[in-house]
Amino acid sequence: MELWFKERQTPGLEIGFKVKETLLRGRSPFQEIAVVETFQYGRLLALDGMVMTTEADEFIYHEMIVHPAMCTHPRPRRILVVGGGDGGAIREVLRYPTVEKAVLCEIDREVVEASKRFFPTISSGLDHSLVTVVYEDGMTFIKGKEGEFDVLIVDSPDPVGPAESLYQAGFYAECHQALGPEGILVVQSESPLLHQELVASIRRNLLEAGFREALFYWAVVPTYPGAMWCWALATKGPHPLNDFNSERCRSIQPSLKYYNEAVHRGAFALPNFFKNKITG
Amino acid sequence: MELWFKERQTPGLEIGFKVKETLLRGRSPFQEIAVVETFQYGRLLALDGMVMTTEADEFIYHEMIVHPAMCTHPRPRRILVVGGGDGGAIREVLRYPTVEKAVLCEIDREVVEASKRFFPTISSGLDHSLVTVVYEDGMTFIKGKEGEFDVLIVDSPDPVGPAESLYQAGFYAECHQALGPEGILVVQSESPLLHQELVASIRRNLLEAGFREALFYWAVVPTYPGAMWCWALATKGPHPLNDFNSERCRSIQPSLKYYNEAVHRGAFALPNFFKNKITG
Repeated sequence: MELWFKERQTPGLEIGFKVKETLLRGRSPFQEIAVVETFQYGRLLALDGMVMTTEADEFIYHEMIVHPAMCTHPRPRRILVVGGGDGGAIREVLRYPTVEKAVLCEIDREVVEASKRFFPTISSGLDHSLVTVVYEDGMTFIKGKEGEFDVLIVDSPDPVGPAESLYQAGFYAECHQALGPEGILVVQSESPLLHQELVASIRRNLLEAGFREALFYWAVVPTYPGAMWCWALATKGPHPLNDFNSERCRSIQPSLKYYNEAVHRGAFALPNFFKNKITG
Repeated sequence: MELWFKERQTPGLEIGFKVKETLLRGRSPFQEIAVVETFQYGRLLALDGMVMTTEADEFIYHEMIVHPAMCTHPRPRRILVVGGGDGGAIREVLRYPTVEKAVLCEIDREVVEASKRFFPTISSGLDHSLVTVVYEDGMTFIKGKEGEFDVLIVDSPDPVGPAESLYQAGFYAECHQALGPEGILVVQSESPLLHQELVASIRRNLLEAGFREALFYWAVVPTYPGAMWCWALATKGPHPLNDFNSERCRSIQPSLKYYNEAVHRGAFALPNFFKNKITG
């Protein structure tokens, strides 16, 4: 017998993973949580049937959602990750000795528990003494906070259901207020190939929320729809190309599998269709 | 009824496209040729059940296999494309007014005919007065040629069956000889995520064949296995970063959807795993 996990990425597009073993299949108050062991990509975490991360390619996504901001902010000490219950973003944040506190705000405790149980290499930072895990809706948690964070990372699922509010100007305005004067917000921003309207709206909403600038950067995430994936880096001050800290980037190189200074600069190089159709 | 075309990209990985209509399904002396109209990516050409190109993402692959070499060579006049029967690489080559002749050497006449019939926007250059189409095996065609081309592009399928010889040092040595003194060879080189051994062997074989340097560059091709795709640029002289011709690149910008100078430089920025495991 062959077992396959298949995700309908769009109504006309599917990705399928041959499965060795089903490790978890359950339902939290928020969503269906499944963990399978695949032949091609190692263990795979799916929420409501959509791939969130796999052992084999998670390094790309997690390094890219964290390091561009961390190597741009002048002194990133206080970090907030909204979503990202697998812990991958927190693991990357902890690579910097400047970090004094890292908060993970994840709505679903069972995602964190599944990651601790089945993805030890991804969730490895969650029990670190500098880390606090808060189980709360991101919008509720951030509301009213002022200048408490240097870097804020929104590692959210697709904008359907409860995550939808995390793509709105109202949420970004709260993020803006929660950041210090040189604060940087990073938002996972879906695929510039398949979700052009959404990507364009993220930038508009970030600028409407008061950020000085919002720049996109991209990488390939082979298990996500369209495989070309992007993030918006919205800043109150420092610029990711002009204020890039080469020395800090070099200092963390030995532990990284994807990110380096050339990759950083290359990631902000947008193909013509991306520049013209989305940020134009 | 729902129709889906599915490709088993690796034994454990599958991609599926919902199909509106089957336009062609035939067998040439070399392979099975199919054209389907998909919902997500427009028309799709498959050879022996493997996706070769789609209307929606072909611009990435075809711009990236052609322009880095064309913007690096000091005066690219005589161009050879081996494989690439869909005509996409030839279309991109013809964007340069310096081009005096462009030869397409494709083993399978029926691929060219299918492309002319079903992919007019991809095959548009094949009837151009500067273009010659030769139906021959690439190795046979190139053997014994001396200094006849400035840029040589190997747009070959995966290294199984007849295409296997196109990945060997013997073929690359013939390419080296067929190129002028500042000649550049570009080789489509599969996925650095899924085919690391093969990618590493391509570089070794290119250096063994006498090229001064062989550098990889990459882009995302969402319909190919692993989605992260790379090409090797092997050079007898000019360097793709140091000798890049910005002015020439700017002059063709209005017709491009992907490639620009920043993308060129970013494409040569290799992630750590790529540098360390493959070119190290």
